[in-house]
Amino acid sequence: MKDIILVTLAAGNGTRMKSVIPKPLHKIAGQTILEHSFECVKNLLVKKKIIIASDDLITQGGNILNESQIVIQTEKLGTGHAVMQCIDDLYDNCNVVINYGDTPFVKPETIAQMLEKLNNGWDIIVLGSHIADISQKYGRLITNGEDLVEIIEYKDANEEVRASNFCNSGIIVANGKILKQSLAEIKPNNASGEYYLTDIIKIAKDSSHKATFVKCEENEVMGINSRIDLAIAEGHFQQILRKKHLENGVTMLDPASVYFSFDTIIENDVILENNIHFGLGVCVKNGTIIKAFSHLEKCKVGNNCVIGPFARIRPNTILQNSVHIGNFVEIKASELSEGVKANHLTYIGDAKIGEKTNIGAGTITCNYDGFEKHKTQIGSNVFVGSNTCFIAPINVEDSAITAAGSVISKNVPKNAIAIERSEQKNIENAAERFRKKKK
Amino acid sequence: MKDIILVTLAAGNGTRMKSVIPKPLHKIAGQTILEHSFECVKNLLVKKKIIIASDDLITQGGNILNESQIVIQTEKLGTGHAVMQCIDDLYDNCNVVINYGDTPFVKPETIAQMLEKLNNGWDIIVLGSHIADISQKYGRLITNGEDLVEIIEYKDANEEVRASNFCNSGIIVANGKILKQSLAEIKPNNASGEYYLTDIIKIAKDSSHKATFVKCEENEVMGINSRIDLAIAEGHFQQILRKKHLENGVTMLDPASVYFSFDTIIENDVILENNIHFGLGVCVKNGTIIKAFSHLEKCKVGNNCVIGPFARIRPNTILQNSVHIGNFVEIKASELSEGVKANHLTYIGDAKIGEKTNIGAGTITCNYDGFEKHKTQIGSNVFVGSNTCFIAPINVEDSAITAAGSVISKNVPKNAIAIERSEQKNIENAAERFRKKKK
Amino acid sequence: MKDIILVTLAAGNGTRMKSVIPKPLHKIAGQTILEHSFECVKNLLVKKKIIIASDDLITQGGNILNESQIVIQTEKLGTGHAVMQCIDDLYDNCNVVINYGDTPFVKPETIAQMLEKLNNGWDIIVLGSHIADISQKYGRLITNGEDLVEIIEYKDANEEVRASNFCNSGIIVANGKILKQSLAEIKPNNASGEYYLTDIIKIAKDSSHKATFVKCEENEVMGINSRIDLAIAEGHFQQILRKKHLENGVTMLDPASVYFSFDTIIENDVILENNIHFGLGVCVKNGTIIKAFSHLEKCKVGNNCVIGPFARIRPNTILQNSVHIGNFVEIKASELSEGVKANHLTYIGDAKIGEKTNIGAGTITCNYDGFEKHKTQIGSNVFVGSNTCFIAPINVEDSAITAAGSVISKNVPKNAIAIERSEQKNIENAAERFRKKKK
Repeated sequence: MKDIILVTLAAGNGTRMKSVIPKPLHKIAGQTILEHSFECVKNLLVKKKIIIASDDLITQGGNILNESQIVIQTEKLGTGHAVMQCIDDLYDNCNVVINYGDTPFVKPETIAQMLEKLNNGWDIIVLGSHIADISQKYGRLITNGEDLVEIIEYKDANEEVRASNFCNSGIIVANGKILKQSLAEIKPNNASGEYYLTDIIKIAKDSSHKATFVKCEENEVMGINSRIDLAIAEGHFQQILRKKHLENGVTMLDPASVYFSFDTIIENDVILENNIHFGLGVCVKNGTIIKAFSHLEKCKVGNNCVIGPFARIRPNTILQNSVHIGNFVEIKASELSEGVKANHLTYIGDAKIGEKTNIGAGTITCNYDGFEKHKTQIGSNVFVGSNTCFIAPINVEDSAITAAGSVISKNVPKNAIAIERSEQKNIENAAERFRKKKK
Repeated sequence: MKDIILVTLAAGNGTRMKSVIPKPLHKIAGQTILEHSFECVKNLLVKKKIIIASDDLITQGGNILNESQIVIQTEKLGTGHAVMQCIDDLYDNCNVVINYGDTPFVKPETIAQMLEKLNNGWDIIVLGSHIADISQKYGRLITNGEDLVEIIEYKDANEEVRASNFCNSGIIVANGKILKQSLAEIKPNNASGEYYLTDIIKIAKDSSHKATFVKCEENEVMGINSRIDLAIAEGHFQQILRKKHLENGVTMLDPASVYFSFDTIIENDVILENNIHFGLGVCVKNGTIIKAFSHLEKCKVGNNCVIGPFARIRPNTILQNSVHIGNFVEIKASELSEGVKANHLTYIGDAKIGEKTNIGAGTITCNYDGFEKHKTQIGSNVFVGSNTCFIAPINVEDSAITAAGSVISKNVPKNAIAIERSEQKNIENAAERFRKKKK
Repeated sequence: MKDIILVTLAAGNGTRMKSVIPKPLHKIAGQTILEHSFECVKNLLVKKKIIIASDDLITQGGNILNESQIVIQTEKLGTGHAVMQCIDDLYDNCNVVINYGDTPFVKPETIAQMLEKLNNGWDIIVLGSHIADISQKYGRLITNGEDLVEIIEYKDANEEVRASNFCNSGIIVANGKILKQSLAEIKPNNASGEYYLTDIIKIAKDSSHKATFVKCEENEVMGINSRIDLAIAEGHFQQILRKKHLENGVTMLDPASVYFSFDTIIENDVILENNIHFGLGVCVKNGTIIKAFSHLEKCKVGNNCVIGPFARIRPNTILQNSVHIGNFVEIKASELSEGVKANHLTYIGDAKIGEKTNIGAGTITCNYDGFEKHKTQIGSNVFVGSNTCFIAPINVEDSAITAAGSVISKNVPKNAIAIERSEQKNIENAAERFRKKKK
């Protein structure tokens, strides 16, 4: 088995994105386009990933670039020039997969099929697809049986060639040795003065090497050049995610109104009302219902919970089984044990709450003092009266009660009632006097 | 007039639903598929409804099964076998409508048309429809003029028969006597060893009885076998509901973003912004605007109200005319009289509020003591200061005022100001000292 | 250059709208249909706008009618009759544009093209479009080269004429002198006894004047007669707005879930999550993210802000750069300086808040006393403890702190800590006693 090297061309400016963020770092379903583009080799043992990058991508790429070798392309002289930047990193005993940091949806099965062709004696394999809108200015693949005769760029194509709808995706799998040899011979002798990667086909064939092609759906090789493209790609990927979750046995009142992240996990017999937003890292177990207008990120939701409507579950939250989170409630970095209820207008942050505790309406954990975050610890079977403030750090023991409207700044022992309140005074006829004065 | 008997086949497992809930109990627009399937006879005097049910359906069906006679089908030997389970409940002087607990949208007009054919001398009438996707494996209706010659199951059909797009829906209306006779003669002599209900056509015709058909739109006989089917059915039904409400004179900024229940009632000149969820049992009177991101269930909303955005109206709530409910406000089991305003971050539960009372931001009715729910009674022209907690049971009389931030635990007389508050202390430079310590 | 006069026919009852509001006053993207109809002349120096109006339109039209001359059409005797109501306001040395108060989308370019034809020697120009659904009962334009031969009303058309899909939009540009002459000769000698505006073509041509046509897309001349039409028009216009914002470099997770007003301004590199509602008059600067389920009206949002999810920004609000507004937070008529954070369950109204001030969860500005609204002034670097109420008018100076749960009714000096709170009492075993009593 030869080594596999992935070369991802990601140095394009993406000016049509009108963004300070490099195009490969824009996101689809919470994951950068660049990371999506890596998915096509996720089942393979890849020896190294080489990213041909712009300065901006290197500056802003962060962790995403960690496992890759980065090669800067400063001058932008075409796709052939881009791959030539890493020619010294390729070697004879390797197979090379060339893909793009703006082409997120190429499937592992497709790359596997291309690599298989290398085993069957082909030297270069190009991925093509039949396009619906023939006016698009992609290069055309000229084929003869299994043989890839030539790739003709749109601007060099005559009417007859343009009438073909079988187009070049740019994705190439090649024998490393032959790729290196061919790359070295690309010349910028064309109208735009660029080095075309596609020229390797003719070069390789002229040296008696063999080129072929693999076909895929047009959607699979959709590239992203503008925010409209990005929105279309997002919509396409959301459809894939929605279908997956429906097939897994999730009920959705209106699938098109649910936004998933690429890594959302939902078990069967979960019911999703309309308009749910799943940020990254959410896992929901079966029997749970998430009502309309809920927003979840990086959290685990147990079995048979009732969430929302208008619930926001923020990162590092764990909701055990049968937890109820109601409307206008925010939970952040907290663990709520089985059977906890927090149904109305509440903010729980940095808290740990025991089983069957009831959190009254308007409860707030005052977890931040302007400098640090502090923990709130509430036991099981506690009854938290409405509009209670907990000044963290604080500990409320099992089976305690807090009186409505109390600011709880001292720990509360087990079974105690804690109250912070003045006496109510009713001032007779004062309202009438006030109104008279006002008028 | 003969008696009409409805036989609903609802014993299917629905394994493709991947659910612990039997398929007929999944819901569309808030109503079970099974109940939807009853709608096709809603205008008829039905002598009895017989449901051929699975154990699971009987266990989980609850009230839905109350008005029906339930017959268990333990072995699942085909549609013919299913109907045979209730053969003793049929009699000569009846007409039988056979439908399905997973086929929700058959129209009353269609059943009426089928019954009319019985009056015109036909003995068995099968409902068929022309399907768009000919690859679907439904049985094909072979017709000759008005005569239904035969129903050929897809697997038994040759290419020519499969090329026909006129398919069997399974819905049958039949003369009770002839149905009973024919059912008794069905044999499981086919590849799958099942009793096919469709065999009654040939059996009846062999005894010189007459079979015909009625046609309907494909949508009308859509069946539900998976969550994808369920989502499609829900989408289809929502479109019907949206069109109905638009035609009634409701303005919707984005009809596709409004989710209705099957029983939602909305008068004309109501404006619905985007993203509204109507749970069961909502009635909205004219001149009212419901702003975006609102969620309503089992409530009555009067004329010229302003609801939302981000309002949640929960069951057993009555909002009289000109009530304003603003953002992040939840109202539950309460009656708000004309002109009441509760515009910000409020929870009102189990309350009765008089005319023109103003509820300040952050008001909470503390209606639950961990054991029971208690009532809050607030008079008219009351001014409730922000962040007031009412410890129910409590009574605040007309024209009273509560001071902001007060916990009101004792009744407030008419025209009084009630206040529960300590003295504010300003500790000079204490903030500076605190910050120094923290750093 | 001749004067340009716009005549807008807006007297129709719109009975199919089922509304007490006249049809031209229903809204699309926050602007009345009537105002939309004025957009087609927005780049022209229009001498006067004449609106042919119903009584209801005059009563309810308000400011919208301010810059126009209003002519009442009491009897409704057809389009010709409508224009005849203002015949005395037209004069020889003018050009007249006739459009409709229920036809919102005619483009300025189209009107420019029609006016250009006047300069090229034509006397009357009719706007036509090719329709997709040939069953629609519009009049058909009969043409011969550039010449408009005749307009045949649908009911007067034979099969051959009806088979044409080139239809009359009703929009006409005409030489004022010839229009006046022709109008005067229209006779109601047809089945419905109405004065057809379209008759002017034949009348003018009989006097050797010249008529021609301009073509536009069908969408451009869509008219509104029902709430379904209104929803379709709204959807069409939203698509135009979404495309514009995407092209400007705005990222939208789900464009179809974002509702824009006609005047929404959003800079590039703004990210919009799903389900955002932009009311009138919103401007958002670049680098800002607006998370799901947010609702904004008449406000300015600076650079690099984080808004939502579940945020509501109400009119007359200014958020400077890097402001964070979190979930279940409402801001009204307030100015928040750079770096202010108000992340949880808060109501800020009529306030001015200095740089880097942190507003704790559950903060409420008590700005209303039942009679007047009062101001809350909070300095910079203030730390507002959770659940603080500010009784406005009030002034909290720079770098002050308020203790959680305090009602702040007196001004707080710089660097002070303000606290309003009683002592917390823990009553041992009282919770246990309470529970025993309850059981």
